[in-house]
Formats: sequence, C-alpha cells, structure tokens
Amino acid sequence: MSLNQLGIVKRGVVRADPAAVERLSRLGVATIHEAMGRVGLMKPYMRPIYPGAHLCGTAATVLLHPGDNWMLHVVAEELRDGDVIVAACSADSDDGFCGELLATSFRARGGLGLVIDGGVRDVKDLTAMQFPVFARAISAKGTVKSTLGSVNVPVVCAGALVHPGDVIVADDDGVVVVPAASAAQAAEASEAREANEAGKRTRLAAGELGLDMYRMREALEKAGLKYID
Amino acid sequence: MSLNQLGIVKRGVVRADPAAVERLSRLGVATIHEAMGRVGLMKPYMRPIYPGAHLCGTAATVLLHPGDNWMLHVVAEELRDGDVIVAACSADSDDGFCGELLATSFRARGGLGLVIDGGVRDVKDLTAMQFPVFARAISAKGTVKSTLGSVNVPVVCAGALVHPGDVIVADDDGVVVVPAASAAQAAEASEAREANEAGKRTRLAAGELGLDMYRMREALEKAGLKYID
Amino acid sequence: MSLNQLGIVKRGVVRADPAAVERLSRLGVATIHEAMGRVGLMKPYMRPIYPGAHLCGTAATVLLHPGDNWMLHVVAEELRDGDVIVAACSADSDDGFCGELLATSFRARGGLGLVIDGGVRDVKDLTAMQFPVFARAISAKGTVKSTLGSVNVPVVCAGALVHPGDVIVADDDGVVVVPAASAAQAAEASEAREANEAGKRTRLAAGELGLDMYRMREALEKAGLKYID
Amino acid sequence: MSLNQLGIVKRGVVRADPAAVERLSRLGVATIHEAMGRVGLMKPYMRPIYPGAHLCGTAATVLLHPGDNWMLHVVAEELRDGDVIVAACSADSDDGFCGELLATSFRARGGLGLVIDGGVRDVKDLTAMQFPVFARAISAKGTVKSTLGSVNVPVVCAGALVHPGDVIVADDDGVVVVPAASAAQAAEASEAREANEAGKRTRLAAGELGLDMYRMREALEKAGLKYID
Amino acid sequence: MSLNQLGIVKRGVVRADPAAVERLSRLGVATIHEAMGRVGLMKPYMRPIYPGAHLCGTAATVLLHPGDNWMLHVVAEELRDGDVIVAACSADSDDGFCGELLATSFRARGGLGLVIDGGVRDVKDLTAMQFPVFARAISAKGTVKSTLGSVNVPVVCAGALVHPGDVIVADDDGVVVVPAASAAQAAEASEAREANEAGKRTRLAAGELGLDMYRMREALEKAGLKYID
Amino acid sequence: MSLNQLGIVKRGVVRADPAAVERLSRLGVATIHEAMGRVGLMKPYMRPIYPGAHLCGTAATVLLHPGDNWMLHVVAEELRDGDVIVAACSADSDDGFCGELLATSFRARGGLGLVIDGGVRDVKDLTAMQFPVFARAISAKGTVKSTLGSVNVPVVCAGALVHPGDVIVADDDGVVVVPAASAAQAAEASEAREANEAGKRTRLAAGELGLDMYRMREALEKAGLKYID
Repeated sequence: MSLNQLGIVKRGVVRADPAAVERLSRLGVATIHEAMGRVGLMKPYMRPIYPGAHLCGTAATVLLHPGDNWMLHVVAEELRDGDVIVAACSADSDDGFCGELLATSFRARGGLGLVIDGGVRDVKDLTAMQFPVFARAISAKGTVKSTLGSVNVPVVCAGALVHPGDVIVADDDGVVVVPAASAAQAAEASEAREANEAGKRTRLAAGELGLDMYRMREALEKAGLKYID
Repeated sequence: MSLNQLGIVKRGVVRADPAAVERLSRLGVATIHEAMGRVGLMKPYMRPIYPGAHLCGTAATVLLHPGDNWMLHVVAEELRDGDVIVAACSADSDDGFCGELLATSFRARGGLGLVIDGGVRDVKDLTAMQFPVFARAISAKGTVKSTLGSVNVPVVCAGALVHPGDVIVADDDGVVVVPAASAAQAAEASEAREANEAGKRTRLAAGELGLDMYRMREALEKAGLKYID
Repeated sequence: MSLNQLGIVKRGVVRADPAAVERLSRLGVATIHEAMGRVGLMKPYMRPIYPGAHLCGTAATVLLHPGDNWMLHVVAEELRDGDVIVAACSADSDDGFCGELLATSFRARGGLGLVIDGGVRDVKDLTAMQFPVFARAISAKGTVKSTLGSVNVPVVCAGALVHPGDVIVADDDGVVVVPAASAAQAAEASEAREANEAGKRTRLAAGELGLDMYRMREALEKAGLKYID
Repeated sequence: MSLNQLGIVKRGVVRADPAAVERLSRLGVATIHEAMGRVGLMKPYMRPIYPGAHLCGTAATVLLHPGDNWMLHVVAEELRDGDVIVAACSADSDDGFCGELLATSFRARGGLGLVIDGGVRDVKDLTAMQFPVFARAISAKGTVKSTLGSVNVPVVCAGALVHPGDVIVADDDGVVVVPAASAAQAAEASEAREANEAGKRTRLAAGELGLDMYRMREALEKAGLKYID
Repeated sequence: MSLNQLGIVKRGVVRADPAAVERLSRLGVATIHEAMGRVGLMKPYMRPIYPGAHLCGTAATVLLHPGDNWMLHVVAEELRDGDVIVAACSADSDDGFCGELLATSFRARGGLGLVIDGGVRDVKDLTAMQFPVFARAISAKGTVKSTLGSVNVPVVCAGALVHPGDVIVADDDGVVVVPAASAAQAAEASEAREANEAGKRTRLAAGELGLDMYRMREALEKAGLKYID
Repeated sequence: MSLNQLGIVKRGVVRADPAAVERLSRLGVATIHEAMGRVGLMKPYMRPIYPGAHLCGTAATVLLHPGDNWMLHVVAEELRDGDVIVAACSADSDDGFCGELLATSFRARGGLGLVIDGGVRDVKDLTAMQFPVFARAISAKGTVKSTLGSVNVPVVCAGALVHPGDVIVADDDGVVVVPAASAAQAAEASEAREANEAGKRTRLAAGELGLDMYRMREALEKAGLKYID
C-alpha cells in the first residue's frame, strides 16, 4: 500500500509502551540516537524555538500541504495524553502553520508539543507557555484551510520516517524517532550507554587521554599515523 | 520613473499617522500580517539579533551596495523621532554594515532600530544597548564608504516593498510592512482580530475543538475525509 | 610541500606570544578584524552554541574527514594550556563530531574551547560547562573513528587559513585568525582603534553626525549625491 | 522493528510487476506523481547529471554513511536486470560516492542507473556512457570503505520512503517512487491522465481558456475575485 | 494603497512602448542592467530551464500562494501579444506551478514566456516547445486551485518590484525589469554602452590593458597599490 | 607574515614546472584529487558555466572585495602564457565580477580561463568564446572599481588554499589545486592510478564484482555484515 494516503484519519493507533516512553524521557537525543545505531534522526535544520525545549512522547502524525494547516485541527481531536504532534509537509514550506491558539488546543487535548517540518509563529507566546516546538523555520505567514492531508498515517518528517505511535524525543541536539516496537530496547541500550559514560567522564576530567582509555594507539599506528617533530 | 534611483536623498517624507503607529506598536506581527490579508511580510530569514527584540516605527529607507555602508551615515541626518532604518542592498551581502557606533548615532537622532537585508556586527554591544536589529546575518566583516546609494526612496527589502514613511513592525515572528496610508485600517483590523481571539483561546483551553468552534466538519466530509479504524 | 598532509601529527608548534594573546583576549573580533585590514575572518555561518561565548587562544589544528572524529582524540594529547582546537573537515559535514566527553578531555588537557567547521552535540551540557564552541551546525549524529586525518598542520577552516600556533579570537560576531607572527602588531592596531572609538561614541551619542565627524560631505557631493525636497 | 537496520543485506526482494514497470517507463514523472495523488516525490534538489536523463526500474536500496561508499560494492552483487540503485545517506553529504568504475559494474550486473542523496563524480564519463544518475551534488571528493550500512532495507532518500522493489521513475522533472504493490494502479491512473491531456492540449492551443475548459469562473466569482478597470 | 491587493484582476494596463521593447530585445541583460545604473535585477537564483533561453516582453503580473496556481489560469485571459507572465508567490515555494498545458495556453493567447519565483515542471516538453521559462526551481509537484491571488497588480518577484506593463528582459545572465516609462531611455543608454564596448573589445583583444585603456594606474597608485618583486 | 596582504602585487612568481602541468592537463580532477590523498579540492558549489569546460594551468591569484573587480584589471598585466586567474573574495558575493571584455583581455595576455569564488556574467558570450570559467554564481550585476585587493598573494578560494604558481585543474567534477612543488609527483601518482583503472574497468565490465576484485568479503564479514533471506 502507498505511504502517504491522502484524505484519511487513521484511528486505533498502537502507541509505544508508556514505561519505555518514560525511560526515554530521561535520556538525551544524542545518547538515544547513538544507542540505536545512528538511525532515526531528523535533519539538523530542525531547531527548538527556545533554548532548553525538551519533548518526549508518542507521535500523532499529520501530513500537510504547503500553506495549508487544515489537518492540524483534525489531529487535535485524535490526541491522547502524552502525544507529540509530528507534522510533515508534501513540499518544503516555511509558512507559519501553527500559532498559540492551536498550541492551546493541543495542550488542552493532551498534546505535549509539536515537531513540524515547516514554520511556526507566535514564538513569544509559545515560549511564555513553555510549549516545546521543533521547526524548520519561524514565520508570521499564516495558512489556509482548503486541502485534505491525512492524520496518523506514516510520514517522512525532516528526512525521518515516523509511524503514528512511535516515540519522539527532542532536545537542543535535535529530534530522534524511536519505533514503537523498539522503545524498551532503545531505552535499555541508552541507559547502558549513559551508565558507561559516567566512568569515562571522571577519567577524562582527570586528564587521562581517550587515546589510552579507548586503546587507540595501536590502530592509529597501524593506519600509518606519524609523529613529526 | 525607475524604482531605485541612485545618488538621491529624498526629503519631505510623509510619515504614517502617529496615532496609528502607536496602536500598531501594541500588536504582534502575525496578527497584523493576517489582518492585512497576508501581504507585506519580509522573508523569514530576517531574524532578531536577540530574543524579544521588538520594533514599531516609520521607515527611513536606505539603498546600499554590497560591502559599502556610506549611506547609513547619510540616513542618520534624515531621521525623525520614531523612525526605523530599513536598509536594502543592491545584491545579497552578509557583511557587517552596521555596528554599535552607528547605532549610537541612530539613537541619538531619534532612530528606534534597524531592519537590514544584510549583516550586522557588535551584536553583544547592540544587545546591551537593547537596540533592536532584524538582519539576515551577523558578521564581523566591516565595509567601505565609496559608492552612492540612496536615502528615502522606495526599496525592496528581504522581498517586501517599503516606501519611506511606511510603518515597520518587527518581533520574534518576523518583520511586516504596513503602507502609510493603510496604517489606521491595519490597526483596526488587527485589533478586531485580536479581540476575537481572546474568546477562542478560552474555549480551546477548555478542550473545545477547532473542528467544532470553526464548524469545519461538514467541509471536511464534503472534501472526502475518511475516518478509518 | 602540500597543504594538508594526511596521517601526520606535527610537534614543536611555535605558539603566538602569550602577552599578545592576552592583549587580544580583551578585544572584540570586529575590532581586530578591522585593525588587520579585514582579512582572516571565518565565514559567518560559524556561530557560537550559546550567546556570549568567547574564546581567545592559540590554535591546535585538526583535519577531519566527514563523519569521522578519530583525530580529535589525537589532538587532545597535543594540547598546551591556552590552546583552542580548530577543526577543519575535508568536505562539508554537519555531523556531531564533538560532545561533552571530548570537551571534558580537552579542558583537562588545557584546551579553552573549540572552533569546528562541522557539527557538535551535547549542546545543553557544553553550555552548562561553559565550554565555548563555534560551529557550523548542531547535530546529534555521532561519528566513527576509522580514517586518518592530521594534527597541527595548516588547515582551511570555514574559508580561513589557520596555522598551528596562530591566535584564534571568537565572540558573538564571528571567528578571526591572527597569524602568530602578527599577534603583537594586531593587538596594538586594535587597541589604537578601540581607544579612538571611545571619543567618537561620545560625540555621536551627543547627536553629532558621522557626516561631519568623518568629514564626508564634500566627498558625497563630489560623488554626485543630490538632496531633493 | 526499526527502519534502517545496519549491517544487513536483505535478499528475496519482491520486485514490482515487470509489466507495470514497462508501462510506467513510457510516462513522465509529473504525470505519475499527479496520478498518485501528489505523494512519493523526492525533494527537488535531486537533479539529473545531464539533460534528458531518464530512468525507470525497480529499487535496489542502499544505506550509506557520509564519506563511505563500501555498500555500493555490496549492492552490485544483489542487482537484477532492470534495477535502479537508490542510495540514501545517514547524514547529508555531498561527497562523490560513485564514479565511472562503479557505474560500469552496476551496468554489467543489470543496473539501469543511480539515484543518490549524495554526490557523484566522473560526470563526463557517466554522460558519455549515458548512465543516468540523479544526485544532490557533483563532487570529485572520493570516499572510504570502512563502515557498514545496509542493502535492500527500506530507506528515506531525499525525503521519500523507498522500499526495495518499488518502482523508481526519474526524468528532467525529478524522481518519483511508486510502491511495488501500487505499480499497476499508478500506471493505469497515469495513462488515463495522459489520455485526458491530449484533448485539453488541442483546445488550449486553439485559444480556449482554462477558465472555460475547467469551468472555473463561478468558483472564482464565489471566492470574491474582482475585475477592475 | 496597499501593495499586493488580493482577489483583484486589474485591467487597462498601460504597456511599455513597443518600439522600446523591440530595441531592448536586441540587448543583453547585463548591458541593460548596467545602463540603468545597476537596479532592477532579480536575484541570481532565477535560472533559465534550458541554455540560451531568451525573453523580452511586457509584464503581465500574477501573485500566487504557495502550492496554488489558480491565478495562472486567470492571467491567461488577460494576456496581450508580447506579454511575459511574471509570477510572484506570497511565500517561498518550489512547487511546479506551471507545466506544458498552461504554457500552450499562454502561447495561444500571445504570451512569450514565463518568469516565476517558484517551480515549474514538464521541463522536457517546455524545452521542445522552446517556451522560455526562468524559475527558482524545477519540480514535478503539482498545485491546487483554491486560493485567490491577484493579476496585474504590482508584485515583488525574486527581490525585484514589477509593475504590470514593465519590460522584462531575461537571458542566460538573469532577469532584469525595466519600468515601462523608462524603456526608451534604458534602450538608448544600453545601445550607447554596447556601441562603446565594440571599440574596447578590439583594443583588449590586441593586448592593450584595461589599466591603460581606462587610465587606472594613477588611481591605483594613489590608493596605495605596491608592486613587490 | 599575514596571509592576505592588501594592496600588493607580487611579482617574480615561481610557476609549476610546465612539463608537469602538461601531464596534469591530460588527467581528470577526480583522479588527481584521489592520487593526492583527497586534499586540495574546492567546494562543490564551484561549477563550470558550460558542460565540458576544462582548465589546466598555473594560478595567477587575485583577492577581491565584494562588488569590486578593480584587481581583475591589475592581474591582467601580470599574466604569463598558461596562467589561470584564481579569484577569491574577502566575503561571499554572487555579483558578476567578470564578463566578456575582461575575458578577452585575459586571453590576449595569455590567460587560459577563470576560477572565481563569486559570480560572472556574459555567460552566452563566454560560452561562444569557449573561455572556461568555474564560478559560484551567474549574475548580471556589475561591480565598481574602488577598493584595493591584492594580486599573486596566497588566497583561500572556495575553501582551498591557492599559492600563485600552483597548478589549477578544473573539469565537470570540480576544481583541484596542486601545489607547484608537488606537480610532478601528483602527475605521476595520477597516471599510475589511471593506468591501474583500465584493467579494473575491463574486469568490472565483464561482470566481476568489486567485492571479489578488491577482496572485500572478509573485511565485510569481520565487520559483521549479515545476509538475510
């Protein structure tokens, strides 16, 4: 079946296990992405609208068309507590698809925040509300409500494939998508990675070199590295 | 007559009505832009040099050439209290056309801030001065003073046409140009829009859906939207 | 000999005179760049990861390959107190080459900060550490450790040539490279420029025009500037 | 299961029906994309390396890492007659992943051409060979062979999701992905669309207006369009 | 009055003098732009869809919205022989607003070609028709017909202000706008410039230096140029 | 001494050995770049103004300022037969610094072509003359002649360091800089590489896999590659 069915609102989304989501919410995007084998990251043009913005929840997906935010009203009704709205667009567009009124509606219906491969507006108000948004642009330009997209179908957002119900984690380093079925496994691998880093941090802070701690000297020599005075 | 006459300083600029400017200063860029029918917005690459920067005043326009800020000294003499310097460039340039010394001069002559389709520098000092600047780039690269541009002629700045005397409003969402003759009308339409939004905000915050509030369900069904379990 | 020798760690770097570095550390990038005759500035896409980040030190250079940060571990061993790591890349890459662990190691070995023509990650931690980084991108995407680059060879970083031992000054306005042998001379010229600006600032703040202070009126008239009522 | 499994070569790919592929090969990308409901198009930065390049075949997918083309050698063995190599990259990279030698190998093994979200080189030779390539960049920069990606797993290439076996059609207008199971349906809808256009072309060439042919006048009037003398 | 009135089709456009248009059609964009004092040029991202494309005619302007080409059907009816359609967009959009069917209609109604600050498609057919198009992008992505823009109002296209009836000249070097009232004057200045260049070309081809022909040596010496052996 | 001395024309440039230049002229940029260890390549935004443009000669360098081409007239006098003009700019600029008149002068004085990190114009004439130009942009916008740059000093052009006298090779794949002292060595390594490729091409064309020819299977297995049915 085709990827982006248009004119469809899919119900009965299976969301990732809440316990796994909760564990992932305490971890950083860089750690999770690394633990997953460096897949699932959105393009680095996706930036938080204020420093320190942080999101972790299950994806409610939307497919929009350039300059048209009709489907954002449709997705509001489909939200469950702990959802993150993930909005893709059928072609690149920097228009301001979402502002403070929609964010108010999202929050009232259980939405935690927004990840949008497009623009947003009312940035000052969204910041005051501490409603986390990760977007490709900020623009005052509003949109129309005239073309059908879809809700809760798989979408490609900023280069990453997102299925409804996947876990979305976003912080100052970017946005990562954890497939719903892999959430517990990703949390476990990330926690192991983080635990492992604490010891390394202490040793590096004491002046030990990565060259020694990671035993790189032999490989570097074998690769031909030469020290020249 | 041609648009960008070179080597000219136009005097006798008719500025927008101060009462309308004052009303616009209490409104957001997104609201004004929407109320005007979504025209007059500069491209979204125009960003404030510090969060929360805000500007509302009448345009004193300048046409610069790449790497040359001579005309910024000429426009300083033409400023009236409440003017915003709007600087266009005859070709794209990220050079730092303006720094803290020029900003000091602008402020001393009545200038409120700067909107420039080019680069600025001394960002730390400009922030400390709380001198609002909206620019396409930040760059330490200085400029020469050798080629004539013009002052107070119509210019195209970041994709928007600006006549001297027009109202310029800029905040975290971008920069909008309100034609001088439309200032009162734009203020009125924006205020109406804002008044209208307060009620909506309350209803949305209480969990009412935009689908119902804006009566979208019938149109969506007519367009063919399907709910699938 | 070729510019970017691969697989080499050069030792015995002659660093710029500490006294000159110290003088440069009290000056702004825009002033220094201007005083040097407008050369040595990196491209304006190099931005600090937090507002107010500031760096002044001697360059320890690294040449990386896209997606590979092996050499950052090698350079850590070569650092001396007051060094700034300057990382170039053999092709454009936004990957996150450096995070908080490497920064901890750099700081423990005397490194003051990082200038990288590539991406960084762990931005929240780096900000909390107040470890200044100037980079082309922020990305959670990690890197491998498999290809040799070089350390302390001349590199082209964000369009500027950097020799090991050169002085690197970076602030909100960008990053400037001062050749080691010119450090004292650049400091002197910059200090003179800054001293000269204090008087100008006072006069401009009092409302005097640049047109008069810099005696531009005659040149403007000669160039053909016309005032039209 | 996760999207981009690393270190995997999937065999037993089910390719789209050859008859449907053949029908699609006689249709243009714009027509197919339109007939599919405007989904499945790669970003417009994907351009042919020579005018008139044209491709239609079944996708053999590859996931690469920046600066590493090892997997392109692995995919060569997996090709079947009529395959198009579709190469995604785990982070943006303009390096020249593929040149004339690899293209020679691809062709010898049944490959029709290459679609790559990265750079290519040997453009003159590839053009002489008339080996169609659609790429984001042209760059002489070569790559290493040191990190595992995957072959014939689903990938996101230039913003579009591609499953192995999907039909890839590319011409001067861009690159479109037709899901394998929808190939016959897409061919049928496209052919109908094209048949329909022939009649329109004749009428428009004779001077009839789209306003009349598509009966737009009423809708425009209802939307409020005003003719002003 | 505001710049971009929406929902309006302006009739009774005064077009530039045909004799002046004819003279301008024999001149290059670089020459005309230079002769006009370096104003009126569109941004350099506007490129011909095939090498050698050339256009000279009077502007029929259209204001579009992202992803919506409704107004292109409206403008078709307003064309007069020798018109060039100039399409601006209310926000950046790379969608394919125009293809071969619309071009057929434009040509049948007297249109010479298209200048669009957006995308086009059917590039192969448009090239075969030798219908000159200058655009910011090529994209197979089609558009809807649902939002009103305007026809024959002043627009800002790729950074340049265009009034209906202005002369548009486009060739491999870019697109220049000549205000209708200045057309004869621009033609005259351009012809003079071109006549003047013929003599220079002969002298330069014979090995004479620009330094001598333009008498630059004294000015260079005065500016401080030093020759070092 | 500083890198980009301003206001200087350096004479007595030592050019690369003509025999080595001649050998390099018969080799491709990708081959040379590879043979040099993947260093010395300009950024991939540098593109030929017509397909098939090819250049090989010794660098005569120029440092320009944005919007100012004065120094291009100065460098004309310094050319020797077989020189390639390499023009860097002190800040990014897309203006058309060079057109057909200057190219005529360059050719008359022995210049083979132009590599410029800026824009060019008169593209149609330059193509007719078959004067090879590699540039970052095409723009009709002309420039002034008012600020001193330098001639035959080391410059950074499109990210690569170029010393006067270095060999510049440019073709459809990009532009590579070969240091004068390494020219013979680079030619030799490139020729060896090319000789080596002929045999590979034959084997690959016969259907042999790179996996076998380069003996990659063991390394891939060791890295963990898994084949899944």
